[in-house]
Amino acid sequence: MAERISEDDLIARYLAPIAGAAGLRLVDDAALFAPPAGRDLVLTKDALVAGVHFFPEDAPDDIARKALRVNLSDLAAKGARPEGFLLALALPADFSESWIARFAQGLGEDARAYACALFGGDTVSTPGPLTLSITALGSVEQGRMVLRSGARAGDALYVSGTIGDAALGLRLRRDTSGSEQLTREESAFLLRRYLRPEPRVALAEALARHASGAMDVSDGLVGDLAKMMRASAVAAQARLPAIPLSAAARRLTAARPEALAAALTGGDDYEILASVPQDACVAFEDAARAAGVAVARIGSVQAGEGVVITDAAGAAMRFAQSSYSHF
Amino acid sequence: MAERISEDDLIARYLAPIAGAAGLRLVDDAALFAPPAGRDLVLTKDALVAGVHFFPEDAPDDIARKALRVNLSDLAAKGARPEGFLLALALPADFSESWIARFAQGLGEDARAYACALFGGDTVSTPGPLTLSITALGSVEQGRMVLRSGARAGDALYVSGTIGDAALGLRLRRDTSGSEQLTREESAFLLRRYLRPEPRVALAEALARHASGAMDVSDGLVGDLAKMMRASAVAAQARLPAIPLSAAARRLTAARPEALAAALTGGDDYEILASVPQDACVAFEDAARAAGVAVARIGSVQAGEGVVITDAAGAAMRFAQSSYSHF
Repeated sequence: MAERISEDDLIARYLAPIAGAAGLRLVDDAALFAPPAGRDLVLTKDALVAGVHFFPEDAPDDIARKALRVNLSDLAAKGARPEGFLLALALPADFSESWIARFAQGLGEDARAYACALFGGDTVSTPGPLTLSITALGSVEQGRMVLRSGARAGDALYVSGTIGDAALGLRLRRDTSGSEQLTREESAFLLRRYLRPEPRVALAEALARHASGAMDVSDGLVGDLAKMMRASAVAAQARLPAIPLSAAARRLTAARPEALAAALTGGDDYEILASVPQDACVAFEDAARAAGVAVARIGSVQAGEGVVITDAAGAAMRFAQSSYSHF
Repeated sequence: MAERISEDDLIARYLAPIAGAAGLRLVDDAALFAPPAGRDLVLTKDALVAGVHFFPEDAPDDIARKALRVNLSDLAAKGARPEGFLLALALPADFSESWIARFAQGLGEDARAYACALFGGDTVSTPGPLTLSITALGSVEQGRMVLRSGARAGDALYVSGTIGDAALGLRLRRDTSGSEQLTREESAFLLRRYLRPEPRVALAEALARHASGAMDVSDGLVGDLAKMMRASAVAAQARLPAIPLSAAARRLTAARPEALAAALTGGDDYEILASVPQDACVAFEDAARAAGVAVARIGSVQAGEGVVITDAAGAAMRFAQSSYSHF
């Protein structure tokens, strides 16, 4: 095997090209960031472990993109625009330089696409599995961060995109039973939704302007809805027919009823759940359309506590487990 | 074994009490930080892996303190005062609640002592070793961050505290030979210097006001001095008799010449190396004294490239390896 690349060379060759001005070419101890005037900073940090949050054999650029995107999803849910990120990368002894090259390529492409430059970080070795953590910084107009606790009785509830695709993709990856119901394109779509979350960065501005509360849906819609309602000290009612499902998810859940529970309680959606006051719904829907992000009104916020999801017949649904836990 | 504590309970019980206002009681997706007006932000991120950066059997509160302190050391070297931090914690399956309780206690004590509150983070499980990463934020008066690249020919070179204690402590921990030269107190002192770095947070203001360049010494003085001179495109000359050694390090290196190389090239000092213009030296020394941090003038910056350290006889010293790499 070729000699392992040194940490300094790895940083200079593969990571420094992704660094923004704040990163000082990654040759200093720290990044220097002049916060934009009149804006609050929003900070989030997610860790991912091979074998827990992704498959070790996933393509390195997919791993890099996922690590950044799950953080961008948190920023978007708070109404924040990305400013930059720091990366900690713990590499197993057997990593190759070509792995790093592909990792950095995916990371760099996303950093550019989402206007979120690398500020700095740390690269270490580990006797364990590949482990990454990213801290992302965003900014939002002063006082406009959208809190999880902001939902009020009477608000409408929205979700972006479609729900359950990633959880169904993960199921297909582990066990292909059910895939005979799907076209090859539909299977590929679900697998891809698991591999490459699409953070709703474009929706951030609409949320900051119109939403009373929001969070990103990462541990399953049912559980995350319950979390947001608890944080807001309110209840929610949602209707299953209103929950947006992709064509592939619709077909799979129609054929296999247990897949419906997986879609609604499985993780990795990285869509956004938002509460919007009634008098702001039209403006929110218009702003979402202008941003090119589909949003669906799935129910409403009510006084009280608890979450009820009713099926097409109007009956309350029950779930064995309401959310997914990696922990 | 008792049932594993849930992630939500772990956060609510042990980490939320450490959270500052920006952390929103750790119940939201992200932290909300209003940056102090007229100041730049300084951001740093260090990762630590059990068995690589610390011993898995180290006391949990020492592990927590070390993870925070190595980041605070970076902030101090940049002249920045701590503002807050985010923590990613990847826990092996067999961690116990009492381990977490002690970890959080140490972390909380340091967060208070250094006025650096927890802003947020992520807790995940890992099939590998305990892995932590901390992103620390500091702030400095606009335009006053002290760069690694700021040293200029003619500047004096200073280091804080004493050099080599931690590297010698680590040696003693791995192999007690040499410890017969030391009193029990001296051995304990060196071991403690490895376990509990003392970030020179109190020196930050003096650095921001008077230093032309600085970095923290974490990978060995000789290698880090070379790094800083390269970043500044200058050379350095330093005198061994001027490099501050503790009584314990002095005694051990006198008895075992190979220990001297370990002291000067081993890692984990977490002291500060700074260049100070000649006309600012008196003011810098006064400010350091007022801050209660010992600083020693070890040499000077010169035009050219390379680092020469001369011994008491004036001969240039040679080192097999100039710095320590965890990578």
